[in-house]
Amino acid sequence: MKLCESTLCTTLLEIRKLQEQDYRPAWTRLDQLTKPPKSMGRIEELAAQIAAIQGTDRPKIETTSHIVCAGDHGVTAEGVSPFPSEVTVSMVANFANEGACVNQLAKVSGTKVTVIDVGVKSDTSFISGILQEKVRAGTGNMRIEPAMTIEELNDALMVGINVAIKEIEEGADMLSIGEMGIGNSTAAAAVVAAFTATPIAECVGGGTGLDSAGIALKAQVIKDSFARAKIKEGVAQGSDAMRVFSEIGGLEIAAMAGVILGGASKSVPVVTDGFIASAAVLLAHAINSASLDYVVFSHKSVEPGHVASYRFLHKNPLFSLDMRLGEGTGAVLAIPMIKAACKMLSDMATFEEAGITQ
Amino acid sequence: MKLCESTLCTTLLEIRKLQEQDYRPAWTRLDQLTKPPKSMGRIEELAAQIAAIQGTDRPKIETTSHIVCAGDHGVTAEGVSPFPSEVTVSMVANFANEGACVNQLAKVSGTKVTVIDVGVKSDTSFISGILQEKVRAGTGNMRIEPAMTIEELNDALMVGINVAIKEIEEGADMLSIGEMGIGNSTAAAAVVAAFTATPIAECVGGGTGLDSAGIALKAQVIKDSFARAKIKEGVAQGSDAMRVFSEIGGLEIAAMAGVILGGASKSVPVVTDGFIASAAVLLAHAINSASLDYVVFSHKSVEPGHVASYRFLHKNPLFSLDMRLGEGTGAVLAIPMIKAACKMLSDMATFEEAGITQ
Repeated sequence: MKLCESTLCTTLLEIRKLQEQDYRPAWTRLDQLTKPPKSMGRIEELAAQIAAIQGTDRPKIETTSHIVCAGDHGVTAEGVSPFPSEVTVSMVANFANEGACVNQLAKVSGTKVTVIDVGVKSDTSFISGILQEKVRAGTGNMRIEPAMTIEELNDALMVGINVAIKEIEEGADMLSIGEMGIGNSTAAAAVVAAFTATPIAECVGGGTGLDSAGIALKAQVIKDSFARAKIKEGVAQGSDAMRVFSEIGGLEIAAMAGVILGGASKSVPVVTDGFIASAAVLLAHAINSASLDYVVFSHKSVEPGHVASYRFLHKNPLFSLDMRLGEGTGAVLAIPMIKAACKMLSDMATFEEAGITQ
Repeated sequence: MKLCESTLCTTLLEIRKLQEQDYRPAWTRLDQLTKPPKSMGRIEELAAQIAAIQGTDRPKIETTSHIVCAGDHGVTAEGVSPFPSEVTVSMVANFANEGACVNQLAKVSGTKVTVIDVGVKSDTSFISGILQEKVRAGTGNMRIEPAMTIEELNDALMVGINVAIKEIEEGADMLSIGEMGIGNSTAAAAVVAAFTATPIAECVGGGTGLDSAGIALKAQVIKDSFARAKIKEGVAQGSDAMRVFSEIGGLEIAAMAGVILGGASKSVPVVTDGFIASAAVLLAHAINSASLDYVVFSHKSVEPGHVASYRFLHKNPLFSLDMRLGEGTGAVLAIPMIKAACKMLSDMATFEEAGITQ
């Protein structure tokens, strides 16, 4: 098959499922540190995950890189977003000018921000500092046509894989993902419904600010898209996942999935964000389930479909702060917490070192 | 009355209840920033709180100071903790040697750590770097005698107030609190029961690692203490709060309450921690309810009594990570999140600045 002669295939073959023994050195050390065993709760689990990924009991996160993937959605023609597609390019410029929310959070987290045009409808080449990797100028309108071809999906995945590998080669020891794309909560809701066997109605929310009529329209558009593309609400996996995603997904979502696969292939953790990013996690997971071991789940969005995604993956986020912005704001907020977890495991005194008899 | 001629009274008179108009400039600006209104959820509320405290729509947190208050508890004689009181002094030395959990988290958060001996049973003067403010060498055993006198409670509060004011004068724009004290989950459970009108059984948990028989014993010890001191399970307020707290509280808990009152008196936010710290919040709140406006609630502990405290105060923490260590670990983990909230509000571009038509 064509795809498996590609770099995608090489990447997938490099992803190693973590085993219980990978976590063991971390847990052994965690239980010797000067605190009641397990008293740091989920922070200990987080430390153990990064330790297992890095193959050490002294994990370290020093250089983090946040990747914002931008793309537009043909489905906005159906009126599924209160904002027009033109806002995507304005926000891309806002990222470049360091005026957006994620830029401010990144400064506090000490994180580099890279913005990629994977599929913005308008030209962004006049904005300096944007990585130009446009696969196509926005997806097709999924209600009447496939969002993208399988080849375009492959290309968008490779954009993410390549940027992940480049960032890692330049020194990043943790990646995080975020997105910008007017209309992408419709694509994400469609992906979550198709990939988690959740009824469409439970996956659809207000996005950037729809009222209940808007939400109902969004659900209908997805329903029509599923009918057109002969997608059953079920669990899409493997090559079927590629087909299903190409019918209803988004270019920036595919690129984020690529970042996850690229990070996982190099044993580097990837911090994921909210609802839109969860569609990327589902795609990465459907392509290679072991990639999930490398994902750190930051927050729970107010979008109802995010719950379906967490339920399906049996994962819990670190916090739930009623956020629904995207850009990877939740992921970037989580970075200091992840660094702190590693520092705790690596640098705390053991009971023996502190001269305390247990 | 004696107490009201003291510095305590001066401090209390300086605490100003925040009004709706104090939050308004922040909310006006938040709604003009390049994001859908309210899309950063609780991070926006957090930013608005710090802005209201600082009296600006461009809040800033740059220099943070974490204050760990240490004290011992006479009630450990009743077998309410799996660890002996001697562990308190060992852990104080561990803090001084930067080997404890909170030290590692503080490094990631960029926070200074000050450790105060407010009431450790053993001598700690041989440990360099510990603030010597011992009010007495551990509390009395509440089952058979008052934990402390009203004067000692006043002194312990003043230790916290004075250190808070000193840190603020030296440049801290945010304080956070934590504690160390074997046996203090029993004192905290007693305070939460007395101050929130919650049945004792709902306030008692495993602490550093009790089994169910240990938890039952802890509840019985508190019951006996309430009977001895004629404390009704009810809402202790004002001067009654001082009496009740002196019967069953802890010196390090009182000092933490002092830090809250001191911070509030200087319009500086104070980040609180888990279950033990919540007893300090309840004391500060009972003495001066406006002090609550200056408190940032970091996390929800696994200790069941913490829920009662949040329910009584109508507050929600930022995260819930199954932690139960103390030391202020949750508070210090929250610091980067609070800094990020302020940075967002202060430095994001408005729609107008970014040239986006809303």
